[in-house]
Amino acid sequence: MSVDIKDAVKRIENQIIGWRREFHQYPEAAWTEFRTADRVIKVLNSFGYEVQYGSEVVKEAAMMGVPSQENLDKNSKRAVEEGADSAVIGRMAGGKTGVVGTLRTGRPGPVVALRFDMDANEVQEKTDANHRPWQEGFASLHAGVMHACGHDGHTAIGLGLAKILQEKKAKLCGTVKLIFQPAEEGVRGAKAMVEAGVADDVDYLFGMHLGFLAGGSERFICGTNGFLATTKFDAYFQGVPAHAGAAPQEGRNALLAAANAAVNLHAIPRHAAGVSRINVGVLEAGSGRNVIADRAVLKLETRGETSAINCFMQEEALRVIQGAAAMQGVSVTVSEMGGAAGGQSDAVIASYLRLAAEASGLFTSIEDSGNLGASEDFTCFLERVQERGGQGGYAMVGINRAAGHHDGAFDFDEAALGNAVTVLVLAVVNLLQNR
Amino acid sequence: MSVDIKDAVKRIENQIIGWRREFHQYPEAAWTEFRTADRVIKVLNSFGYEVQYGSEVVKEAAMMGVPSQENLDKNSKRAVEEGADSAVIGRMAGGKTGVVGTLRTGRPGPVVALRFDMDANEVQEKTDANHRPWQEGFASLHAGVMHACGHDGHTAIGLGLAKILQEKKAKLCGTVKLIFQPAEEGVRGAKAMVEAGVADDVDYLFGMHLGFLAGGSERFICGTNGFLATTKFDAYFQGVPAHAGAAPQEGRNALLAAANAAVNLHAIPRHAAGVSRINVGVLEAGSGRNVIADRAVLKLETRGETSAINCFMQEEALRVIQGAAAMQGVSVTVSEMGGAAGGQSDAVIASYLRLAAEASGLFTSIEDSGNLGASEDFTCFLERVQERGGQGGYAMVGINRAAGHHDGAFDFDEAALGNAVTVLVLAVVNLLQNR
Amino acid sequence: MSVDIKDAVKRIENQIIGWRREFHQYPEAAWTEFRTADRVIKVLNSFGYEVQYGSEVVKEAAMMGVPSQENLDKNSKRAVEEGADSAVIGRMAGGKTGVVGTLRTGRPGPVVALRFDMDANEVQEKTDANHRPWQEGFASLHAGVMHACGHDGHTAIGLGLAKILQEKKAKLCGTVKLIFQPAEEGVRGAKAMVEAGVADDVDYLFGMHLGFLAGGSERFICGTNGFLATTKFDAYFQGVPAHAGAAPQEGRNALLAAANAAVNLHAIPRHAAGVSRINVGVLEAGSGRNVIADRAVLKLETRGETSAINCFMQEEALRVIQGAAAMQGVSVTVSEMGGAAGGQSDAVIASYLRLAAEASGLFTSIEDSGNLGASEDFTCFLERVQERGGQGGYAMVGINRAAGHHDGAFDFDEAALGNAVTVLVLAVVNLLQNR
Amino acid sequence: MSVDIKDAVKRIENQIIGWRREFHQYPEAAWTEFRTADRVIKVLNSFGYEVQYGSEVVKEAAMMGVPSQENLDKNSKRAVEEGADSAVIGRMAGGKTGVVGTLRTGRPGPVVALRFDMDANEVQEKTDANHRPWQEGFASLHAGVMHACGHDGHTAIGLGLAKILQEKKAKLCGTVKLIFQPAEEGVRGAKAMVEAGVADDVDYLFGMHLGFLAGGSERFICGTNGFLATTKFDAYFQGVPAHAGAAPQEGRNALLAAANAAVNLHAIPRHAAGVSRINVGVLEAGSGRNVIADRAVLKLETRGETSAINCFMQEEALRVIQGAAAMQGVSVTVSEMGGAAGGQSDAVIASYLRLAAEASGLFTSIEDSGNLGASEDFTCFLERVQERGGQGGYAMVGINRAAGHHDGAFDFDEAALGNAVTVLVLAVVNLLQNR
Repeated sequence: MSVDIKDAVKRIENQIIGWRREFHQYPEAAWTEFRTADRVIKVLNSFGYEVQYGSEVVKEAAMMGVPSQENLDKNSKRAVEEGADSAVIGRMAGGKTGVVGTLRTGRPGPVVALRFDMDANEVQEKTDANHRPWQEGFASLHAGVMHACGHDGHTAIGLGLAKILQEKKAKLCGTVKLIFQPAEEGVRGAKAMVEAGVADDVDYLFGMHLGFLAGGSERFICGTNGFLATTKFDAYFQGVPAHAGAAPQEGRNALLAAANAAVNLHAIPRHAAGVSRINVGVLEAGSGRNVIADRAVLKLETRGETSAINCFMQEEALRVIQGAAAMQGVSVTVSEMGGAAGGQSDAVIASYLRLAAEASGLFTSIEDSGNLGASEDFTCFLERVQERGGQGGYAMVGINRAAGHHDGAFDFDEAALGNAVTVLVLAVVNLLQNR
Repeated sequence: MSVDIKDAVKRIENQIIGWRREFHQYPEAAWTEFRTADRVIKVLNSFGYEVQYGSEVVKEAAMMGVPSQENLDKNSKRAVEEGADSAVIGRMAGGKTGVVGTLRTGRPGPVVALRFDMDANEVQEKTDANHRPWQEGFASLHAGVMHACGHDGHTAIGLGLAKILQEKKAKLCGTVKLIFQPAEEGVRGAKAMVEAGVADDVDYLFGMHLGFLAGGSERFICGTNGFLATTKFDAYFQGVPAHAGAAPQEGRNALLAAANAAVNLHAIPRHAAGVSRINVGVLEAGSGRNVIADRAVLKLETRGETSAINCFMQEEALRVIQGAAAMQGVSVTVSEMGGAAGGQSDAVIASYLRLAAEASGLFTSIEDSGNLGASEDFTCFLERVQERGGQGGYAMVGINRAAGHHDGAFDFDEAALGNAVTVLVLAVVNLLQNR
Repeated sequence: MSVDIKDAVKRIENQIIGWRREFHQYPEAAWTEFRTADRVIKVLNSFGYEVQYGSEVVKEAAMMGVPSQENLDKNSKRAVEEGADSAVIGRMAGGKTGVVGTLRTGRPGPVVALRFDMDANEVQEKTDANHRPWQEGFASLHAGVMHACGHDGHTAIGLGLAKILQEKKAKLCGTVKLIFQPAEEGVRGAKAMVEAGVADDVDYLFGMHLGFLAGGSERFICGTNGFLATTKFDAYFQGVPAHAGAAPQEGRNALLAAANAAVNLHAIPRHAAGVSRINVGVLEAGSGRNVIADRAVLKLETRGETSAINCFMQEEALRVIQGAAAMQGVSVTVSEMGGAAGGQSDAVIASYLRLAAEASGLFTSIEDSGNLGASEDFTCFLERVQERGGQGGYAMVGINRAAGHHDGAFDFDEAALGNAVTVLVLAVVNLLQNR
Repeated sequence: MSVDIKDAVKRIENQIIGWRREFHQYPEAAWTEFRTADRVIKVLNSFGYEVQYGSEVVKEAAMMGVPSQENLDKNSKRAVEEGADSAVIGRMAGGKTGVVGTLRTGRPGPVVALRFDMDANEVQEKTDANHRPWQEGFASLHAGVMHACGHDGHTAIGLGLAKILQEKKAKLCGTVKLIFQPAEEGVRGAKAMVEAGVADDVDYLFGMHLGFLAGGSERFICGTNGFLATTKFDAYFQGVPAHAGAAPQEGRNALLAAANAAVNLHAIPRHAAGVSRINVGVLEAGSGRNVIADRAVLKLETRGETSAINCFMQEEALRVIQGAAAMQGVSVTVSEMGGAAGGQSDAVIASYLRLAAEASGLFTSIEDSGNLGASEDFTCFLERVQERGGQGGYAMVGINRAAGHHDGAFDFDEAALGNAVTVLVLAVVNLLQNR
């Protein structure tokens, strides 16, 4: 079986690499993945998948950190100019760029879902002779946007997987769902797909990331842990301006509210049950030197080793922000800009991944667990699946890379794409084999 | 007339000095002036004044900064041991030590009131050969309590005035009220007498202080201004303790609430309409090094050139305190511990005082106005009288003194006592002369 | 004499109004008054004045709040396109746009200086039919820049005065210096001219402002007081960035340094000797939500009723800023961006102005003194002149105006221009009359 | 062998219990263990141990958190009154109450040390019929001091161990050192004994605690981990007082320095390498409401999962404190009041303890490792021994107890005393057996 599948993957390897390079050339930041989503839709349709997108799979009210309408308009127009279908793009209005492809075998069996993220980073790609995408002509065509985190590869892997599973459909039972998520950067997109019900029928859930671990393409992590739950939010303070010389007593000082909030947010107590984090990364306040500042904004994030710890941090943060506003007599509005749950990969999923990785013969270092030590909104899907009694897990697939993630010089050896497809196909086939 | 009155004062000068020395020996801090009040009552009765005291002239609900019941009990017991009448003391329960003596002429005319303060300071009197009270045997018998602000003299002046006015009664019309106030230190006592209605029928109001100005007994200020309105208050924060190592997240940190409040209280904006002040003089918080502090207290005061400015400061202060508590999720209780209004002496009163001072021939430097630059709760009476259309004013009577006010070496040349009685009698007689 | 002068002014009134309208059409913000200065130079030359400008009268090292080189380049190029002499502009490199015109009578006598400011505001002028400059075609041609404070009028008055004094030269003794100062807005320019020595030989100094007082053109203030000393400065904090999730302990938090500084700057104690002010009007810190902020800037100002009080505030502010930086282990650089001294008009100058105003018959309300209650860097010249034993003063000339100063609808009845020229000429002639 | 030893322990069990009860009756707080140390010295002498105490085993310069001289004098006098030898007490001047007893076998072999702590808590012992020490007449005779942490038991165990080992001396090689440490509460005492060189020749080090784990006397932990490194310190701020109304600008505000420090200490960043803690447990500042506060004290502690993390916290804390002082222009002095290292029990020691615990047959639940989650200055000895290449470990011996540690109702079933002696003897004999 594994030999057969490896051969199948080998046959389409160039196509997978081609997809990756196309996505790399047309990188799209969070909620503007119009061209990418259009391309995913076309390919999935060509493979005979049922395809859903737009408001069917993305709940608008749950989208976080969405760009301005002006930005969305500019990018949807751009996507059409770059070949996307304008009717399809029209159904993604407001940035609802998520896509779900479903393969129904017609035979009873569980629902297996795999989730891939599609968005790029707001990073300027390096332009020098040593940077392979530049040298080989597939560097970003979009100034200030770049696939520097490997999501171009993730999307291509998802399409490769779609192709092989469709070829093997006759030998499978149950259902396969391929979830293509927008806006993973800033952990903004998963919630809106979960709220649209995308994970509500899933029995087994897989997620993955290329790299994010030391070493090279010889490593494979079967069960990733250490997802930090996180919430991103902005606080807008509104006070009253006044002339600082002539009538300071008439002002309501938003700058001081924000300053006090910032210091006291960092002073939220450590939580004894595990890792917690807080950061006010941005504070902008005031207009002129001689005016009592009437407006201020804080951009902050909380994190926790578990969702409960992050929840504690978030509640404390809201209280501090509101207290600081009250202290200065100013009003404050808090907007959630992103968020992910904590989570643990289930052992069942890790064991399927171990079997597949071993069977593939592609890795010399296969490890049961690994620590992400960061945030990933895959956990929003995971939480929903686990709540309903399903199982989920997340793999890390080693890569030989040119530079760190989010660096303008990031690139990776594309052999890893086939490796990932191979292992995921083996795991799915093992789960859904029509015996 | 003035010669006649100067002679009358001269005749009782030794008695006035005797009263002052007696009060000096038995100094009593705010709200514990039991022995002093008992003595004042006895003397006023002996002169035929109508005498009111206790709840008739002090409204318990408006008393501020009252000592503990234990302290009151100890002091009322002491006063009885020192000769006070226990039935009288009984009617002063809770510290209601104010006394009002009224002289009714039976002839129609205005009501003239003069206010004297009776309380001593919590200061240890100096014990050395150069300190006259010590040398001449009338130093304080009460450890840690001393008349270091001249209120012993003020009370004696009030009794001397009572004596002379009673002698001159046949030549007067209208009514004279002598108000003996407790707890001027910390500006705690006036409000409770005003709230009891003591000033509600007053047409002309006089107040005075010995010293409080540079130079010596040659100076007399007819109209004192620059009273800073002030409020004194304590804020008690109540949080939740927790072990700082094992469960810091379970605490609610009262120490941090108080610390934030302190800094932000000092950051209340300056008021462009005039002088403002704020001070957190005391902060005490926490119990043990390894416990999240669950309680804290701030002792603070606001001031303003006018009552309106002080009111602004007080409102801002309350908001800061409540906001700081909210920020840490702790509760807070604020208790008013003292307060005085701002105020200006009326020109009419100053002119009566100028005439009297000139007629007395006792002063070589008579000035229309002077700046106190501090707080005095005489202003509470003044505000009430002025609101009702009456007139009020405050004199400063120069003294030759041994050391600054509130210093353990404070003392003054007792010739100033007769000077003060003379001027006040002349002013009252001029106002109430039965023509 | 005054009739003669009034006639002389009347004859050139249209020219004065023409200058004012030309300056109004070509407004130039602080340190970019290239076209204005070039025009002033040409006119003064045409009247036979000795003219100095550029580094002769502006000390580069003492210029504060200078725009970027790019901004300066753009504006000097623009000025040339608008008709300025490129060689002249070249000598103003770096924004040294100050001009001094000197009229030497050749007869012994005192040096009388008059100072006028030339810069416009960064305000967008109103464009509607009710706004006279718009209606009559002399509104600002420079987007976002407008003479909304009357400095166009001040410069025109200076030129009118130059014309009349030159006509009267034969009747005068001593020397007249007309100082045209850049960058009064933000109190940035005077210091650099004073440091260049412009005021070092001045015996009598005059300054003036159109309006800045209630009422209309019937009012004239002979001696302005209530100049608040002020310092404007920016503080740049430099820390170390770090990932807020992965290694917060490696950061040095500039945002927290700035936030603590802001709160504690506002908590600098009130000064009992007089009015003090402090304001942090702008705080900008950080780059990304998940990065420990490595840079921050504060824009602040201190003020004081006297230079000594402002000096106290400034020293305290520097200490707070440096302490806050030390607390977070970040470095900080403070740049002075503007400043003015406190000051009082001398009675001698006020009396010359009163005589002139009375003689002019142009005002019905002539007042000895008035309170500015704001900052004006005229005080830098005044301080230097007074230090050397000279006398100085500042007049406020009433105007009928359309809207408040610094408002996009500001405009005034130009009759005030001739009024101001008349009074100033009368005062100068009285001082320098060749008897 | 183990049967033999169990019998030996059984024979002296009553004596061990007697010692414990004697120590319980005469509890002595940190650095005042005069009577306890005197008793330990006498008993060790009676068993033929070499005994060192006073400055031989406690380095005065390294003692932390020592009570006042007055307190020491009172307690040493009390100890003599309670039967201690005054010459011995004299050699403990300044609180140097540590004792080391050494048993030399005369045969070559390693040095094995066991450390016991002797100090009591500043806790009031419960006085009711349900509290066994009260009921059976061995409750504390010292008001406000109580053995509520089991150190009375530890000291008794040390003496029991001394007795048995002395009986077995002929069968042993090498050297046994019994270290009786003062002032473990507040982690104040170990450092001074380590600095005196007490651990410099130790090859194997044992420490232990009764209880501190859930469950009862059936449990035995062989290797304790999770010692939090900690530093305790006090910061004294000294400013300049000033009258808050008359001259606030002349003050240097120590209260604000302490308040800012407190907030910012809590805002020290979390350390990504492991658990960190900070707490300002006490803040006391100021004298009077109307005086700029000129003095303040903070009592704080830092903790870390490792000594390196605690070191980071301590350095940050010092910087914050100094920066906060600089910000207000006040001076600050920091005194170290206690401290312990982090640490891990070595596996070798844990394995000897496991063998002994198993051989004893006294426990049904023997666990390799356990987490203390608190601070213990045993780690100071441990660190020194490990630095020199030795091995060390710490056992937790289960107890059936009446209430939690540090509670006035604390008591335990004294059977645990014999259990502890038995296991420790077995472990030492196994290590030093003369084969």
